Amino acid sequence: MYDVQKIRTEFPILGREVNGKPLTYLDNGASAQKPQVVIDAVTTAYSMEYSNVHRGLHFLSNLATEKYEAVRSIIARFLNAGSEDEIVLNSGTTEGINMVAYGWAMPRMQAGDEIVLSTMEHHANIVPWHFLRERQGVVLKWVDPAPDGSLDPQAVLDAIGANTKLVAITHCSNVLGTVVDVKSICEGARAKGVPVLVDGSQGAVHMPVDVQDIGCDFYAITGHKLYGPSGSGAIYCKAARMAEMRPFLGGGDMIREVTKETVVYNDPPMKFEAGTPGIVQTIGLGAALEYMMGLGMDQIAAHEAGLRDYAMQRFDGLNWLSVQGRAPGKAAIFSFTLNGAAHAHDISTILDKKGVAVRAGHHCAGPLMEHLGVTATCRASFGLYNTREEIDTLIDALELAHELFA
Amino acid sequence: MYDVQKIRTEFPILGREVNGKPLTYLDNGASAQKPQVVIDAVTTAYSMEYSNVHRGLHFLSNLATEKYEAVRSIIARFLNAGSEDEIVLNSGTTEGINMVAYGWAMPRMQAGDEIVLSTMEHHANIVPWHFLRERQGVVLKWVDPAPDGSLDPQAVLDAIGANTKLVAITHCSNVLGTVVDVKSICEGARAKGVPVLVDGSQGAVHMPVDVQDIGCDFYAITGHKLYGPSGSGAIYCKAARMAEMRPFLGGGDMIREVTKETVVYNDPPMKFEAGTPGIVQTIGLGAALEYMMGLGMDQIAAHEAGLRDYAMQRFDGLNWLSVQGRAPGKAAIFSFTLNGAAHAHDISTILDKKGVAVRAGHHCAGPLMEHLGVTATCRASFGLYNTREEIDTLIDALELAHELFA
Repeated sequence: MYDVQKIRTEFPILGREVNGKPLTYLDNGASAQKPQVVIDAVTTAYSMEYSNVHRGLHFLSNLATEKYEAVRSIIARFLNAGSEDEIVLNSGTTEGINMVAYGWAMPRMQAGDEIVLSTMEHHANIVPWHFLRERQGVVLKWVDPAPDGSLDPQAVLDAIGANTKLVAITHCSNVLGTVVDVKSICEGARAKGVPVLVDGSQGAVHMPVDVQDIGCDFYAITGHKLYGPSGSGAIYCKAARMAEMRPFLGGGDMIREVTKETVVYNDPPMKFEAGTPGIVQTIGLGAALEYMMGLGMDQIAAHEAGLRDYAMQRFDGLNWLSVQGRAPGKAAIFSFTLNGAAHAHDISTILDKKGVAVRAGHHCAGPLMEHLGVTATCRASFGLYNTREEIDTLIDALELAHELFA
Repeated sequence: MYDVQKIRTEFPILGREVNGKPLTYLDNGASAQKPQVVIDAVTTAYSMEYSNVHRGLHFLSNLATEKYEAVRSIIARFLNAGSEDEIVLNSGTTEGINMVAYGWAMPRMQAGDEIVLSTMEHHANIVPWHFLRERQGVVLKWVDPAPDGSLDPQAVLDAIGANTKLVAITHCSNVLGTVVDVKSICEGARAKGVPVLVDGSQGAVHMPVDVQDIGCDFYAITGHKLYGPSGSGAIYCKAARMAEMRPFLGGGDMIREVTKETVVYNDPPMKFEAGTPGIVQTIGLGAALEYMMGLGMDQIAAHEAGLRDYAMQRFDGLNWLSVQGRAPGKAAIFSFTLNGAAHAHDISTILDKKGVAVRAGHHCAGPLMEHLGVTATCRASFGLYNTREEIDTLIDALELAHELFA
């Protein structure tokens, strides 16, 4: 039994007011709030169990190392990776995708080689590939979504040519909520010998993920959207790809031996984890993933599907509002514009006066904005603690905004 | 008046026991403990003030952005940078030095170009330069310390040749405690037109730092050694160098516009800060630096000088122990070996039984270990909260270890 009211009490910030109104937090796509178990894990780590990891032999160092390294297997379980050695701990998706761009793609791509992307990608899964275009003449090939926001896996596979070296694609659009059939894409790309990187920044938040079932080569997640601390994250790398990858960040821990003349690198995944890591935020991420798995990823997905359906029904009752993205099975992420002159930023400011936090802007998705023919949208993105009542509050606030700007 | 007993009460972990003994934490060189003000800043940020930064317009987003961005000017003040626009926020020194290696050095160095390093560098200030050696034939030139551990600035300047493009040097050795005269090195290098990167991982912890007085081009700091959260940090980049640097990590926030065809990057320093940053740990770092500046960096340095002198005197009373590094004005960081067979790891294990946390190993300083002719040392490194009584506890525990292994 998924008790959303009980769950809400576990997130202290949800009890606060904003502008004299109860907080209605619908900006989960940007970053999620943290349950008390995560905050407590962070506090305990700093207050009573803190030390650097890996390099010490004293009690606190062993304790911190044990707590930190345990998170690797929690993440492996969360993603159903075949081995925890396929998990590289990092600061989030941006670092993860940059690692693949610099460490795997850069040394093996020449001018004219291609990377296939969808037009729905977040800048984190675009800019690192633009680096390869700017610096070594790699060609980016884009696959547009259908008018309803859905993405045909066959269209992605059709874009793969003889020079395609990588497909880099989101599991779930942060703007449209579209869930991409990454399993079919991986199956087809594998048949053509092309690895697939999946940006799981949103996907892993809203549905159960099984990287072995998906069959992807890389799957990047970011802790702050997963109800965990800022600056935490990980990337799953299939062992074969990990073996092909050269080190990205250089420093302590990722080496076995350093002399004046040479370096012998550590074994993967340590080879890709340089310097003192985000010790405490990683421990907090472990607590967040245990919390989510405790609720059940299927239950979270079912709860959010109910929110999605109710929100869509309420939005459809507003004939002055346009929702972007209506793909079947989409996540509870809604981008919208108000017909007429009102700018997304003005709308979000009105909503804020009612305690409703949404995002307005390009959502770090420039090519998609251009494709949609808009410069900005408002986005209401739901999480595991949101309720139907909050959707009603959003709709009431939107009606007020509509009246003000009509 | 520097009241170390009062200060100790502000660090909750210092009240705990380890192996039935009061904790004597002398592993500050690896990572420092956190005062309650830092822990509270982190807890408050997650419990009541959390949101993503920069991209939102709602109350919590504005609040989090304000708290986060305020840290840039705190760091500028801490380092006496000319402008907060010369501060790039990041996850620590490793990321900072890699940014300079990938973003500044890599595009402007050819085979045969040289980087001058000291043999005392930490792997964080070695491995990124080895990448340039491995990948593009850059030559690393090493300057050894004198037998007492001191480093002659003129020796560093003499190593600069016609092909030298960078000097990369520590402000303070994490193994020997040697404080390097980086100001003289910067002055001489500037006269030869060669930029200087200073690794301030240890330096900024133990003494007041003034990057304008030093005259360096880059100065990297890491939050977790500065009594701040793990995964926090920054690098000072002189505006002229920042302007020469290409982006390192690609993603959100560091762009102005992204299309399918091209990217327009943001202005510095944002150009070098990709994706959702370490929001809360950066806020915590701000609290840590305010705490240190509140105590007074001069007062901290004076307190630690007292510890250094007392520790040296006590070590000198042990004729079966060899201290590595006796440079005048060194920081309170002591690496040592016990004469005879006892391995550093065994010694640290004995000390741990007495509640004394020290580090044993190569301290991420392979070339220095080779230069010293040792494979490992024990290291006792002191911080602003350590006391003379703790030095006595260390010496007592060492005497026990000596008896056991004699």
